[in-house]
Amino acid sequence: MKEILNESGELIELVMPSAEEIETLIREKKYSELKGKIAALEAVDIASVFGEIDESYINIFYRILPKEYAAEVFVETDAELQQKIIQSFTDRELSEVLQDMYLDDTVDVIEEMPANVVKRILKNSSAKDRTLINQLLRYPKDSAGTVMTVEYVRLTKNMTVGEALSHIREVAIDKETIYTCYVTDKNRHLLGIVTARSLMIALPEEKISNLMDENVIFGTTTEDKESVAQKIEKYGFLALPIVDNEGRLVGIVTVDDAIDVLKEETDEDISKMAAITPTETPYLKTSALNLFKARIPWLLLLMISATISGTILGFFESALIPVLVLFVPMLMDTGGNSGSQASVTAIRALSVGEITVRDVFLVLWKEVRVGFLCGVSLGAVALGKVMLIDRLLLGNEAVTIAVGASVALTVFATIFTAKIIGASLPLLAKRLGLDPAVMASPFITTLVDAVSLIIYFFISAGLFGLTI
Amino acid sequence: MKEILNESGELIELVMPSAEEIETLIREKKYSELKGKIAALEAVDIASVFGEIDESYINIFYRILPKEYAAEVFVETDAELQQKIIQSFTDRELSEVLQDMYLDDTVDVIEEMPANVVKRILKNSSAKDRTLINQLLRYPKDSAGTVMTVEYVRLTKNMTVGEALSHIREVAIDKETIYTCYVTDKNRHLLGIVTARSLMIALPEEKISNLMDENVIFGTTTEDKESVAQKIEKYGFLALPIVDNEGRLVGIVTVDDAIDVLKEETDEDISKMAAITPTETPYLKTSALNLFKARIPWLLLLMISATISGTILGFFESALIPVLVLFVPMLMDTGGNSGSQASVTAIRALSVGEITVRDVFLVLWKEVRVGFLCGVSLGAVALGKVMLIDRLLLGNEAVTIAVGASVALTVFATIFTAKIIGASLPLLAKRLGLDPAVMASPFITTLVDAVSLIIYFFISAGLFGLTI
Repeated sequence: MKEILNESGELIELVMPSAEEIETLIREKKYSELKGKIAALEAVDIASVFGEIDESYINIFYRILPKEYAAEVFVETDAELQQKIIQSFTDRELSEVLQDMYLDDTVDVIEEMPANVVKRILKNSSAKDRTLINQLLRYPKDSAGTVMTVEYVRLTKNMTVGEALSHIREVAIDKETIYTCYVTDKNRHLLGIVTARSLMIALPEEKISNLMDENVIFGTTTEDKESVAQKIEKYGFLALPIVDNEGRLVGIVTVDDAIDVLKEETDEDISKMAAITPTETPYLKTSALNLFKARIPWLLLLMISATISGTILGFFESALIPVLVLFVPMLMDTGGNSGSQASVTAIRALSVGEITVRDVFLVLWKEVRVGFLCGVSLGAVALGKVMLIDRLLLGNEAVTIAVGASVALTVFATIFTAKIIGASLPLLAKRLGLDPAVMASPFITTLVDAVSLIIYFFISAGLFGLTI
Repeated sequence: MKEILNESGELIELVMPSAEEIETLIREKKYSELKGKIAALEAVDIASVFGEIDESYINIFYRILPKEYAAEVFVETDAELQQKIIQSFTDRELSEVLQDMYLDDTVDVIEEMPANVVKRILKNSSAKDRTLINQLLRYPKDSAGTVMTVEYVRLTKNMTVGEALSHIREVAIDKETIYTCYVTDKNRHLLGIVTARSLMIALPEEKISNLMDENVIFGTTTEDKESVAQKIEKYGFLALPIVDNEGRLVGIVTVDDAIDVLKEETDEDISKMAAITPTETPYLKTSALNLFKARIPWLLLLMISATISGTILGFFESALIPVLVLFVPMLMDTGGNSGSQASVTAIRALSVGEITVRDVFLVLWKEVRVGFLCGVSLGAVALGKVMLIDRLLLGNEAVTIAVGASVALTVFATIFTAKIIGASLPLLAKRLGLDPAVMASPFITTLVDAVSLIIYFFISAGLFGLTI
């Protein structure tokens, strides 16, 4: 569903044709009616309905699309469908679509295709594109090189504004953005940037060298794509130039790709925080088997780790008086929640660049204070709850002052320890080159459970040793 | 730290002057040296060092800033500092900075200031700005109206490209973006959009009405700002026009503001998933007391809820044979993790728009299958672990086949139930108009703990009733 404005500026709802409607129109060969229905839609909307229509209609539907949309819709559909569409293409059709695609998108497609399809794509690309594709494919996983586009506007510093504008007019059709132009020397060393805004305002005879900003913030091909996306976010750029290690401009990353990278990284973080292996397909499109595969290793690992808590409980069961067992679930949960709060805060702060590994002492000092405040307040509440409700109100005679004191002290010590563990493990993971996000709730909970039981035992043993 | 390229295109590192350095240079009145050091920095970098220098230097430092940066740096500093800077301003200085700011930024500042400062800001704005500010302040919380900018380029459909370009040249300096221009009639009804790209390519005598795209995707002033940001993300726009309920263009939301909105919403979701009240300040700048306040209500609520599990355990303790207690931590943790996986997946899918409340049956059917697969596998592992390790290897005679069966069946039933609960509660919350993110790990864990204990009890009671 999409709303648009009609000629007198009223909102009207533009209903996206459903998969069934499209199938019917194709079956009845009402192609021009179908064309009319999709004319006002965006490529990404067409791509989403594409995934829903029956396979046997895909090829006809794809050929009905307005020519200027075809490549864009192709890029937006999922890999499985892309493969089917390619297989239905003649070589000529394939090479036409490839010509209309930006090379970074072609590389994204190639990375998902089986070898025989890759071969056909390369065969139907121009020799120049083939060289560039092969170059792009060689950049390390998750590097800026893998998300950059090589179609940008390059100017020289001796051009006038008028010359630059007519150059842009000539090449614009093939460039992903013309709003930031890059000034390089003959060896492609990046010298500065000029915005389309400044070109549009300037006098035609002005020199580019007078207009360009030489303080260029840039990324490098091997830099983490997340770091490049964060620069674009931080400085509010529309694009960031990417240079190789000799300072030569090799591509740009545009803001829409940066948004995708940030979203993807957030998805990954959130998945890991919930102890799930990240999947790239949307939830409803992921099969139950694949969801199972993404979840079972972590559940299994955590289940086995959690049996340690059982072993500790068994080891201590004989030593503890039975009434103390009643408070185990509450102590375990509270410790786990307290640790999760600290770990998720630290993971997110690391992820958005608010803290680095070097801030470890600042973080610990903060959590020591927060842990103390939380521990004291909840310890007091726990003491009140145990003595007033369990003992007085419910009249459980087994709940002595020593029991209340054990529970309250354990609440305090567990919360305090959980905060320290929760905040330090993500930093430790980062320091060791691991992903901090795996040190989130499930892992912290399992660890803190064992720790809280040990604390509980020693505090109880101490108190009852003294009072009994 | 920022890297830039020198004239021959080599990477050189541009070191940001530290707070101490800046303080020393100011004390020694070496203003031009300081000016030189900050000349190549971006406003957002200057703003970040701003927060670190001693208060007594702030006013001098701010006046040293290059004039064209002053407003931008001011916008990027935090509210506390902004207030101090404003208080040091003469009326004339204040009105100069206000003139250089975009109105959406002015409104953001106003929202954080005490009444007397707001009064001064309004007094020193032009009459026209004052009217617009008051209008912007009236939009509902979190609506598109609160993040839109009212400085955009407006064209009419009878203009020629040449006329449009000279209009842009005149007004560009005051507009946040000139890359998308908006075509309206005399009553400001939005008729279409024209990109700067198409204007730069077109012939000067061409009519705007021939160039403009009439299929405009837009937002409305009262629409949720997250929904507007998602449209910008989905379609890869640089800006989205915002219309009132009569289809009149009142502002635009730019991609950089959309990124901020998406990041803020993600921060909020992640905080809620970890049972923390979201805070707006970065972690290290949030006081221990404020972190405590953000965390304690949830910890308290969850601790009290968790005592229910203890009560259930106490109620069943007499009925269960002691050895069964050993498996309680493992059952609780596994149930909690299983539920968290499903709930976090559902929350994220809702948040990025992959699923809606109407997909509830698709979601449940998927989780039924995933839950079955996970439950069967982990039940089998649990049975093997209990019988082989606890009974055979560790020789615990109390661990009978009935105990193993109880544990394995409970693992299966708990995982299965936890998946259903975990996936359905976020959808239920959304349906009830609540935020799905609160239905994440901590809440689900507490709930599933109680459920898993009840399941464990009934299964054990059933099995032992039959076998003993």
